[in-house]
Amino acid sequence: MILEIVAENKCFGGRQLQFTHESSALNCTMRCSIFVPPQADTSKVPVLYWLSGLTCTDENFVQKAGAQRIAAELGVAIVAPDTSPRGEGVADDPEGAYDFGLGAGFYLNATQPPWNQHYRMYDYISAELPDLIASSFAVDAERAGIFGHSMGGHGALTIGLKNPQRFKSISAFAPIVAPTQCPWGEKALSGYLGDDRERWNAYDACELLQSVQQKPAALLVDQGDADNFLVEQLKPELLQQACDAAGVPLTLRLQPGYDHSYFFIASFIEDHLRFHADQL
Amino acid sequence: MILEIVAENKCFGGRQLQFTHESSALNCTMRCSIFVPPQADTSKVPVLYWLSGLTCTDENFVQKAGAQRIAAELGVAIVAPDTSPRGEGVADDPEGAYDFGLGAGFYLNATQPPWNQHYRMYDYISAELPDLIASSFAVDAERAGIFGHSMGGHGALTIGLKNPQRFKSISAFAPIVAPTQCPWGEKALSGYLGDDRERWNAYDACELLQSVQQKPAALLVDQGDADNFLVEQLKPELLQQACDAAGVPLTLRLQPGYDHSYFFIASFIEDHLRFHADQL
Repeated sequence: MILEIVAENKCFGGRQLQFTHESSALNCTMRCSIFVPPQADTSKVPVLYWLSGLTCTDENFVQKAGAQRIAAELGVAIVAPDTSPRGEGVADDPEGAYDFGLGAGFYLNATQPPWNQHYRMYDYISAELPDLIASSFAVDAERAGIFGHSMGGHGALTIGLKNPQRFKSISAFAPIVAPTQCPWGEKALSGYLGDDRERWNAYDACELLQSVQQKPAALLVDQGDADNFLVEQLKPELLQQACDAAGVPLTLRLQPGYDHSYFFIASFIEDHLRFHADQL
Repeated sequence: MILEIVAENKCFGGRQLQFTHESSALNCTMRCSIFVPPQADTSKVPVLYWLSGLTCTDENFVQKAGAQRIAAELGVAIVAPDTSPRGEGVADDPEGAYDFGLGAGFYLNATQPPWNQHYRMYDYISAELPDLIASSFAVDAERAGIFGHSMGGHGALTIGLKNPQRFKSISAFAPIVAPTQCPWGEKALSGYLGDDRERWNAYDACELLQSVQQKPAALLVDQGDADNFLVEQLKPELLQQACDAAGVPLTLRLQPGYDHSYFFIASFIEDHLRFHADQL
């Protein structure tokens, strides 16, 4: 596997890189960002995968979260992939909706045409990308964690729960915890997977908490209580109930006055990086 | 004077606000951002003015510099204005160049038509905006500092040097230190002020260091040595020479491997905030 560096900026003593590569899982050229901390010059470092939310690319987190400072201090790499396949020939929502198609891959493997031609973000994030990163950078694939925001929080929870050997720590900001029970999720799951709701459960964190063999040792979730999407889409109480039923220790922090923006993420990103570093 | 809040996000316990107001100096509606730290809930706080570079709006610094964390810790407000007048009827470079007209006000009062109708960023930053801020937020106008990047570093140095009673601390990232001696500056100064080079000196930091009555007690400048604009446009050695001649203590830090981007600014913004807080 080969990647091409398209941008490089020194940042907090490390390197913020942007690269492109041919993805076999997604059947298109993908762009991705990685922060490589200075410690990687001398030894392999732990690596975190950040999954972004609806409409984002690989750049939002890199520019707005302010994570590089702590990543450089802790000696952790952070990979920020795009949120869907891209490019010529990749199907998009016919009406250009922000919550389906381009920028809205929902971290699953689509089964419905035309989406099943490219939309296999689950395979990309859970296997192809970590393999590419491990073969291209000084990261220790045995010490990997996963986190994300909103749709990306959904991705982090579901991919993390199903791949405990790949991802040893999981956290999320304002995640979609039960896509089978909210409008964003129902639209995405029916569109990508079809109408058989049984198939949807494989991509629902609250469902997976009951069914996965290996439960996570800990989960950290931050949620702003002034988030416009809190009641209709995010429903963190469902995650609390599922974790309680599964015996999974969840630290769910309802942050007063915070909304769904990157200003919220930036305010608490340090806690998440330390949470992952402690487990890795 | 009245301002209208158009966006508000909680961030590090404070408030990141964006507002619009009618500017009499610029004769148009302006948008501006301010971070109000939590300490402003109980007492007036020091305030810093950040001047951005070419092509920027009030948003770049707010989203990319990661300054709110330290501002919240230190209890400092940060105002981030736009970089030029905007809107219907505001003249722009006829070819849409990035380095003249909209997004490139150069923090001066234009004398040449049509620019003299709106391009009076010097008056806006040195008087109208500080007065508006002081009357609208819990800031102590007696404890104000100014800093900026590139064209905004030029603005911070020149406005700070000429208004020591308004701005008691000055710093810059990769500033244009001598616009009378570089292509960006020659284009802007001739366009906005005409061909009489004598008039240009009022907006050249190296010239002002010799002529101003009250010299600054200290200057902090960071400059990346991998900055593409270093040799042709920025020329920090001219600032060093001017400070030496004027007896002004300059801390000029050439940062190895850093470029002209916000990744560079984010890496050292904490040092600048502490530099200002110490003097205020």
